[in-house]
Amino acid sequence: MSDALGYAAQSASEPLAPFRFDRREPGPQDVRIDILYCGVCHSDLHTARNEWNNTLYPSVPGHEIVGKVVAVGDQVGKFQVGDTVGVGCMVDSCRECPSCGQGHEQYCDQGFIGTYNGSLYGGSENTQGGYSDHIVVDERYVLKISHSDNLAAVAPLLCAGITTYSPLRKWGAGPGKKVGVVGLGGLGHMGVKIAHAMGAEVVLFTTSPEKVKDGLALGADAVVVSRDPEQMAAQRDSFDFILNTVAAPHDLDAFLTLLKLDGTMTLVGAPATAHPSPNVFNLLMRRRSLAGSLIGGIAETQEMLDFCAEHGIVSEIEMIAIQDINEAYERMLRSDVKYRFVIDMASLSGEQAA
Amino acid sequence: MSDALGYAAQSASEPLAPFRFDRREPGPQDVRIDILYCGVCHSDLHTARNEWNNTLYPSVPGHEIVGKVVAVGDQVGKFQVGDTVGVGCMVDSCRECPSCGQGHEQYCDQGFIGTYNGSLYGGSENTQGGYSDHIVVDERYVLKISHSDNLAAVAPLLCAGITTYSPLRKWGAGPGKKVGVVGLGGLGHMGVKIAHAMGAEVVLFTTSPEKVKDGLALGADAVVVSRDPEQMAAQRDSFDFILNTVAAPHDLDAFLTLLKLDGTMTLVGAPATAHPSPNVFNLLMRRRSLAGSLIGGIAETQEMLDFCAEHGIVSEIEMIAIQDINEAYERMLRSDVKYRFVIDMASLSGEQAA
Repeated sequence: MSDALGYAAQSASEPLAPFRFDRREPGPQDVRIDILYCGVCHSDLHTARNEWNNTLYPSVPGHEIVGKVVAVGDQVGKFQVGDTVGVGCMVDSCRECPSCGQGHEQYCDQGFIGTYNGSLYGGSENTQGGYSDHIVVDERYVLKISHSDNLAAVAPLLCAGITTYSPLRKWGAGPGKKVGVVGLGGLGHMGVKIAHAMGAEVVLFTTSPEKVKDGLALGADAVVVSRDPEQMAAQRDSFDFILNTVAAPHDLDAFLTLLKLDGTMTLVGAPATAHPSPNVFNLLMRRRSLAGSLIGGIAETQEMLDFCAEHGIVSEIEMIAIQDINEAYERMLRSDVKYRFVIDMASLSGEQAA
Repeated sequence: MSDALGYAAQSASEPLAPFRFDRREPGPQDVRIDILYCGVCHSDLHTARNEWNNTLYPSVPGHEIVGKVVAVGDQVGKFQVGDTVGVGCMVDSCRECPSCGQGHEQYCDQGFIGTYNGSLYGGSENTQGGYSDHIVVDERYVLKISHSDNLAAVAPLLCAGITTYSPLRKWGAGPGKKVGVVGLGGLGHMGVKIAHAMGAEVVLFTTSPEKVKDGLALGADAVVVSRDPEQMAAQRDSFDFILNTVAAPHDLDAFLTLLKLDGTMTLVGAPATAHPSPNVFNLLMRRRSLAGSLIGGIAETQEMLDFCAEHGIVSEIEMIAIQDINEAYERMLRSDVKYRFVIDMASLSGEQAA
């Protein structure tokens, strides 16, 4: 076992604080990664505060990890010491079910093993995430990073990037397609960049008129203030696909009616309380679909990283020290971040833990 | 103008009764059809009683029409006097929008013209449906019937048949696919027959244990009593597609969770009050979709009629006289019909109308 240092929540009501814990030594197929940067996802906050009622404490969050390989097991073939690599939301899955067989490990029949708050197969160990100095992961669940600089801004691609890339690819965003992105936050701003790079006509929907300029700068062809009925009416029946990144309960019909024949709106956030029930007539009348999508598979995550490197896409970030994490959570709750916090893990050195 | 005899509702609260009205003389592209049989759809009842708050009175319902051509206009090319033909839910559409151009007239941007309770383009006339002795329709919206007998049982194909055929075809029902049909009524029993003929593995879901035997006889490979949690649990994550024919508000999650990765459940009925809002996690977790579908286009309706003729598919019906229509409505409300009422329009002869 190796001695790891991280920041953990000890209970739903305590702030995150320094925490020492054990990581396994690298097995034959494992890669040990010293963590450089870790993005801050809203799921981290949900888990730290047990808002999904499934948190095992102590809990070290973080699943947008970029780091350097510092050791590899005997049988590791894809990685060498010194490689820049990433780890996203998963560190394992059953590898045997049809979903795993098709490269859709995120839909594993047994449930994938989360990078944090997951139980590794064959053990009672609780996985601990990227708010820490290092991590040990089976090479199958490690991604190559080919971006040459700005690695901190690459970290959010591992969750926010793949969560938007996967449905955009699945539902055919590309030239000749009109794609809507609902919400300009950590997910939405990646959706706009990626859909634009895929060649689609991109319309961003935001409730905040002050975000119009930002949306255009990020690559949207147009920005619609969704609280303006006239602007919304002008978009009716015109979208091939809408990526809805808003997790708060809201009126889905306002966006479903913007889809044209055979259009789909895909949700990538799950609200804590239900959305108002969508009107079935809006589905019937243009053969529209309402779908969901969850992160992406490992091969697809690699494809996304390569696509983003090729197109010069990274996240818009605000770098913080690990000591700022509790304040950062409060700011996230006020949507006071453009558009993703990333922890500079160098700030962890010198911390003393209980 | 020609003198037509039918049964009409004069208001939301009055029973249907004999009614004389004018039909236009056939124009150059029109076909005049003497009606032999007309199926009784739940939409007829909704309209007669103004349950959708859009009924123009007097209203002659009926959009599952089978009859004989008795006159054709100069420019009619597809039909001759003596042909057996059908008319479904539409008698016109704009013919110019992208949906019409793709043969999806049911999703016409201007709204299709309903066979009853619709306004013909260029006129204030209220269309009157198939509970009548004859009808005049543009040949583009008239279907060929190649069934050689049991024509009464063909009538429901014009609405119940195409409403189930279109989504089954769109979402790929066929060999190697597991297809669920929810509800065994006028729509559901057609869905079972058609999905079975397409070569899919068909599972019928019904709340009524006494319908198990009927479901198997209609072609289902298995029948699941949806009120039995154990039977439902055994079907989890296993369906490629579910056709949900139940218009009453119900728990969609119970069926969404039965879909496997990338599965779709398509609704073909719209409830008067909303379904409970579906749980977004159930969409995210297997990238599932909830969709809607509305009847079918004219070319597809012809394809469906030919498919049904080839496979010997007709509806299961109970024949009634037009004088029984008000009692039939009451029985429909009690689900006391196996599985579709069809009016023998010969019963109309000799009626005296106000």
